[in-house]
Amino acid sequence: MARQSDPATPDPARLDAADPLARFRGRFALPDGVIYLDGNSLGALPRATAARVARVVEEEWGRDLIGGWTRHGWIDLPLRLGDKVARLIGAAPGEVAVADSTSVNLFKLLAGALRLRPGRRVILSERDNFPTDLYIAEGLAALLGGGHAVRLVETDEIAGAIDGETAVVLLTHVNYRTGRMHDMAALTRAAHEAGALMLWDLAHSAGALPVALGACDADLAVGCGYKYLNGGPGAPAFLYVARRLQEGFRSPLAGWLGHAAPFAFETGYRPGGGIARALAGTPPILSMAALEVGVDLALEADIGAVRAKSMALGELFRERVEAGCAGMGVTLASPRDPDQRGSQICFAHAEGYAVVQALIARGVIGDFRAPDIMRFGFAPLYLRYADVVQAAEALREVLATRAWDRPEFKTRAAVT
Amino acid sequence: MARQSDPATPDPARLDAADPLARFRGRFALPDGVIYLDGNSLGALPRATAARVARVVEEEWGRDLIGGWTRHGWIDLPLRLGDKVARLIGAAPGEVAVADSTSVNLFKLLAGALRLRPGRRVILSERDNFPTDLYIAEGLAALLGGGHAVRLVETDEIAGAIDGETAVVLLTHVNYRTGRMHDMAALTRAAHEAGALMLWDLAHSAGALPVALGACDADLAVGCGYKYLNGGPGAPAFLYVARRLQEGFRSPLAGWLGHAAPFAFETGYRPGGGIARALAGTPPILSMAALEVGVDLALEADIGAVRAKSMALGELFRERVEAGCAGMGVTLASPRDPDQRGSQICFAHAEGYAVVQALIARGVIGDFRAPDIMRFGFAPLYLRYADVVQAAEALREVLATRAWDRPEFKTRAAVT
Repeated sequence: MARQSDPATPDPARLDAADPLARFRGRFALPDGVIYLDGNSLGALPRATAARVARVVEEEWGRDLIGGWTRHGWIDLPLRLGDKVARLIGAAPGEVAVADSTSVNLFKLLAGALRLRPGRRVILSERDNFPTDLYIAEGLAALLGGGHAVRLVETDEIAGAIDGETAVVLLTHVNYRTGRMHDMAALTRAAHEAGALMLWDLAHSAGALPVALGACDADLAVGCGYKYLNGGPGAPAFLYVARRLQEGFRSPLAGWLGHAAPFAFETGYRPGGGIARALAGTPPILSMAALEVGVDLALEADIGAVRAKSMALGELFRERVEAGCAGMGVTLASPRDPDQRGSQICFAHAEGYAVVQALIARGVIGDFRAPDIMRFGFAPLYLRYADVVQAAEALREVLATRAWDRPEFKTRAAVT
Repeated sequence: MARQSDPATPDPARLDAADPLARFRGRFALPDGVIYLDGNSLGALPRATAARVARVVEEEWGRDLIGGWTRHGWIDLPLRLGDKVARLIGAAPGEVAVADSTSVNLFKLLAGALRLRPGRRVILSERDNFPTDLYIAEGLAALLGGGHAVRLVETDEIAGAIDGETAVVLLTHVNYRTGRMHDMAALTRAAHEAGALMLWDLAHSAGALPVALGACDADLAVGCGYKYLNGGPGAPAFLYVARRLQEGFRSPLAGWLGHAAPFAFETGYRPGGGIARALAGTPPILSMAALEVGVDLALEADIGAVRAKSMALGELFRERVEAGCAGMGVTLASPRDPDQRGSQICFAHAEGYAVVQALIARGVIGDFRAPDIMRFGFAPLYLRYADVVQAAEALREVLATRAWDRPEFKTRAAVT
């Protein structure tokens, strides 16, 4: 550990002492002995969540029963919580709703986009986009038939590939595997210049870095509640439709909660005003309530400070790994420039799967993405500089001692 | 209260003492001073739910973080819980999944049905079906265009209206407003004779009465987790696809969880085996866990005894109301024959809205459905015979004293 006292590299203890976000760590219930570098997959538990969920279960539901829908504002949660998420992603009040899963919301927005650009039948995306997003797009194109198609291009070909056939460009802001971040303003502009709409998946952005949907003139967006928003396993997702598009937007999932008068039980469907028309069925209140705690916590932090710390954590980890693991078969798989990546760093290693398992056995939790990517996420609200230094040292040790070379680390479970 | 000791009518105390389901009431956390006749809208809180949800939050999520997906079987919940629901609705293991909302599931199954009956473009339903179901069907038809249509007929015309254009017949087993129950076997047979598929909405059936999807040869079904399954506000819904149809079934919502290898992050979508292919996005685990407690409780009860008690409660309530409120403008709006209705009784009254509010102010919670329906649901697991007698007496009092005739009971909130 001599490296830690090397004057040429920053001292993690000093960095932690000076961290303006340090106080947030105590707001999470983190297990002992664990360095959690997987908050980009499932965020940690805010301390306030258990009491909030217990209150919803025992008082709001148990005591007030059906009255809870109005008395405790359950019915308003999708839009009320949406307005809070809006502040994290540079959207205006009334532009965001919390509902359903990212997949379902993506389906709604892609179908809505095709309707807003009649005559154009192509959904353009990149080959390296998150597979689920592509599955949903393909599923929609297959359902619609009639020449609707998903066109996939390489990352550096996107801007040039948007043409008069393109109804909507679908991109994930921060790549799930490499952490590479798109230029939201430039690509949105390119889409608009070709007459297409731009749909951003903010799964790895919301809560981790500043997003400026409004300033970038973005049209549509979806995102995830259980990563950097710390909403809990399978927390509901969110969707954004720019106000200027809402009047013409129609959701293909015309459920009761998106109706103009949800409680009137009218015979025909009339879309609700504003973003409400993007809602479908009854929201899962327990999961929504847990998500609200995570979102409230994220709103307490200055997102500029979050981004600054995220970049500093990433750089510190990269430097320590590249120095400590030199010659051990580890290659940086993320952009070297921290401005070009989100809140994660990935390294490729031929035995990446086993290495990640060996790290987990030591309490350093990252994850693996095929074919060879070891992924380490940095959630600045609960991660310390000392943690990433310790994680880098654990990685060095695992590689130096070949601790990964054991059968139990190499057997891939059916589910990982 | 002389009526209670009238030897010609049953004594509720004696009925409660002899009730084989009486022990279940203690398994629910019911508030004092409330007679809850709205379990058909939002079921009551099982006592075991709070501890189960707390464990999921604090231990499974808080301590085990991302490991919870495998260690605590979150990833299996949609199908594991589906197999439990299957036992309540006469389906086989592997035919039911718990996921999303009823609206979203209905969309999946209707789209899947149209694909299974190529060339047929009509969704047939009844004018009096639950409006949301019709909205979803209309939304799908509008999305698909090309002659796809929703055709609505009167209830007694359904069987005769199924023709060679009909891809799928969509009916709610128990009508949300009148409680009238369809003959599942006969209508399924009629659909099949015309070459159409049959899709049942079991929102008001599952957990309240025996359902025999398999024995009726039903093709598709959806249902609700927050009514008689007591899963909590907005609990996830379920869907059923008969095994013989699963191979040809495709969900339009081709999300990652329905993929044959959800964790392989393959480029193209391959539908999973069996009912798994009807899944889409990540399930909301807190809400799923709460639902499991309700379903487990429902499985402890003999569904035949549940149905027998439900009918007895309904008959007792109907008799007491018709005797006590004679000449007070109350008309039975449900079938008189208990064999032809689900687990609710509805009465029409010109001032029904205000009457229901006056009852709620007295702690008797039913609900109102436009234009004039007072709806009273009977959840046999936690309702006593004494409760329904007391509720009938409260209704008599409210009507006899015109207690409903106060401004605060007549002002309709925007949300009711």
